[in-house]
Amino acid sequence: MNKIKGGVTIAKGFEAAATAASIKYQDRSDMALIYSEVPCVCAGTFTKNIVKAAPVVWCQDIVKNSDNAQAIVVNSGIANACTGEVGYQYCQATAETVAEELGIETTAVLVGSTGVIGKQLPINKIKAGIKELAKDKTASVASGNAAAKAIMTTDTKEKEIAVEIMIGGKQVTIGGMCKGSGMIHPDMCTMLSFVTTDVAISKELLQKALSAVVDDSYNMISVDGDTSTNDTVLVLANGLAGNGKITKEETDYQQFVAALREVNIFLAKQIAGDGEGATALFEVKVIGGESKAQAVAISKSVITSSLTKAAIFGHDANWGRILCAMGYSGATFDPERVDLFFESKAGKMQIIENGVALDYSEEQATKILSEPEVSALVDIKMGDASATAWGCDLTYDYIKINADYRS
Amino acid sequence: MNKIKGGVTIAKGFEAAATAASIKYQDRSDMALIYSEVPCVCAGTFTKNIVKAAPVVWCQDIVKNSDNAQAIVVNSGIANACTGEVGYQYCQATAETVAEELGIETTAVLVGSTGVIGKQLPINKIKAGIKELAKDKTASVASGNAAAKAIMTTDTKEKEIAVEIMIGGKQVTIGGMCKGSGMIHPDMCTMLSFVTTDVAISKELLQKALSAVVDDSYNMISVDGDTSTNDTVLVLANGLAGNGKITKEETDYQQFVAALREVNIFLAKQIAGDGEGATALFEVKVIGGESKAQAVAISKSVITSSLTKAAIFGHDANWGRILCAMGYSGATFDPERVDLFFESKAGKMQIIENGVALDYSEEQATKILSEPEVSALVDIKMGDASATAWGCDLTYDYIKINADYRS
Repeated sequence: MNKIKGGVTIAKGFEAAATAASIKYQDRSDMALIYSEVPCVCAGTFTKNIVKAAPVVWCQDIVKNSDNAQAIVVNSGIANACTGEVGYQYCQATAETVAEELGIETTAVLVGSTGVIGKQLPINKIKAGIKELAKDKTASVASGNAAAKAIMTTDTKEKEIAVEIMIGGKQVTIGGMCKGSGMIHPDMCTMLSFVTTDVAISKELLQKALSAVVDDSYNMISVDGDTSTNDTVLVLANGLAGNGKITKEETDYQQFVAALREVNIFLAKQIAGDGEGATALFEVKVIGGESKAQAVAISKSVITSSLTKAAIFGHDANWGRILCAMGYSGATFDPERVDLFFESKAGKMQIIENGVALDYSEEQATKILSEPEVSALVDIKMGDASATAWGCDLTYDYIKINADYRS
Repeated sequence: MNKIKGGVTIAKGFEAAATAASIKYQDRSDMALIYSEVPCVCAGTFTKNIVKAAPVVWCQDIVKNSDNAQAIVVNSGIANACTGEVGYQYCQATAETVAEELGIETTAVLVGSTGVIGKQLPINKIKAGIKELAKDKTASVASGNAAAKAIMTTDTKEKEIAVEIMIGGKQVTIGGMCKGSGMIHPDMCTMLSFVTTDVAISKELLQKALSAVVDDSYNMISVDGDTSTNDTVLVLANGLAGNGKITKEETDYQQFVAALREVNIFLAKQIAGDGEGATALFEVKVIGGESKAQAVAISKSVITSSLTKAAIFGHDANWGRILCAMGYSGATFDPERVDLFFESKAGKMQIIENGVALDYSEEQATKILSEPEVSALVDIKMGDASATAWGCDLTYDYIKINADYRS
């Protein structure tokens, strides 16, 4: 598998565009379009929050019932959440406008929104934006990058990735982009993530692949414990790679899942590392677990702990908070068998052996914890299961962003 | 029921003392003693964190097996958590010293610690402190207040309460003190809370009363979602009020439970309002619930939401975050039937009716949310059950305290 430059336009037959529709921001792009020149099979996973934004409801229906998805239109600035019947009508009007401009069916159009909750979309601005998007779309890497920028809210950088793999003797390409910075604690999937690929695959297996991958990627990150109303991951596969269509869970499928996992773990980590106000990506790997569920519970409990996150911000090897967060995770383990290591580009060091602190150098630990990507490795010595979760530190800027920003 | 001035020394036969033992702080008291001149029945609830501090393990044993509890000794500065076998031996040595100084059994001594995790107690300083405490104890209100101050860590003020009620024709008094500011998300009970009373009651009913009351008080508060390793609530009842001993769940019992509930809700709210860095106590009351469990889940989800807490800090009526936190609580309800009000000393106003925002004044909402105690009232219109939870805002100072403080 090769990682290459690009994003959602990298797979054969995909185009993208971005435009500034003045939905909320006055000085930047805020609408994006992804388009496939031929119909795609699509798969999606969505927030489990029972307060679902209108575009989530719209997309759930399309993913379930449509076999000809061909476009995704996304706006930032307003989330179209808690907007009632009018909000849903605006989703429909958005999809209809896209369909008309692109000459496709309304049921081929997926819709995404992110931003402030509770405000109605300025539907005329949306419609005008769609006309621009339809006119401007191209297959260039620059267009994909522009789309990744247009869907940002409090994100500080665009998030995209592209990889190529050989499947059944053909080169298959997968590209993706996502956004997410606050209200990130996915339960099923994260805020907005869009993956395009030219692989030929059945709709059933595409959904199966996505669901498997989401558990190891978006469902393993947290910025602030808040599960959004808008979480959406969509994958479009248009089949233009020309590989023999994947319809069984054999080698071709496994290869595709491995690549899709890499793409989505990359995107999920980008979200965690760009958490609102974050100065560091914080990775917690639990090994020696009795079961995957146990390792998942412990790793997620640690990355979610406000006290641990604040300690990471302070570059403080405050291992007691990590042990404490493990202890209230709901998982059972023996605290007196736990080993804990900190690791980053600056080195690796053991802090706890069998539940007791070693005589480690605080200075060296602080050096390790001062890097932009830091890891805690926890061995609970009960079995072979493992899990990795990603979060970020908790900083003054998180407070600043969220005490001031009406999101 | 009358609220009166005082704390743990207010009930007949109770004395207290505080001393500066230089355990961690150099400029303040850090040890407290509560003593009853006659043996007490005692009840306790403890953290469910599987990483339990040594004094929690010690007290669980005493509460279960001892019928003659007579003293509680507490230190701040070091939590005696994650300290292994040595930590437990130090608990025992502490209890033995108290027993010797006071001329009581070792099994009559309860022990509490709060502060940094992972460090061993300076046992000689503890022993020296105990000698001072034994010498200095008095039944004065001032001694109770000094004890409440000595157990503080990042708390900004001492927390105590006293009430008197008539039970069976006799005046019964209940006094309490507690501490807690960070690592507050009790699952069973909060950090450290000590209640003394002269009521005559069986041990069994004292425990039953405490367990009932803890669910409506400490288990309904959160500062940061972190369930501590040290959470402990202890009640000592020495019987000196002279009421007919309460052995049945009849009127006397109900009256006592009502008073004990008021005492513990007061103490729990004091902890929430004095959360690390907090500028406001944030109360969330859910009414119209189908069941108590549902109302509890929704109210706790809202007070725990980092985004909601940051909005409260910003005096921002960001109702979308409240609806979002309700939605991921795990409880089922219809978002389109929700009514939401904000209330404080500055007034009350409705923000949402049937899931849709009213045309309310942001200026007026900000005024209401700028008070030191603010409430959100949520009606989900499904039944008669209700629940109230208490938290605080999330501020720059929370980050400051926890990025710098090795707790």
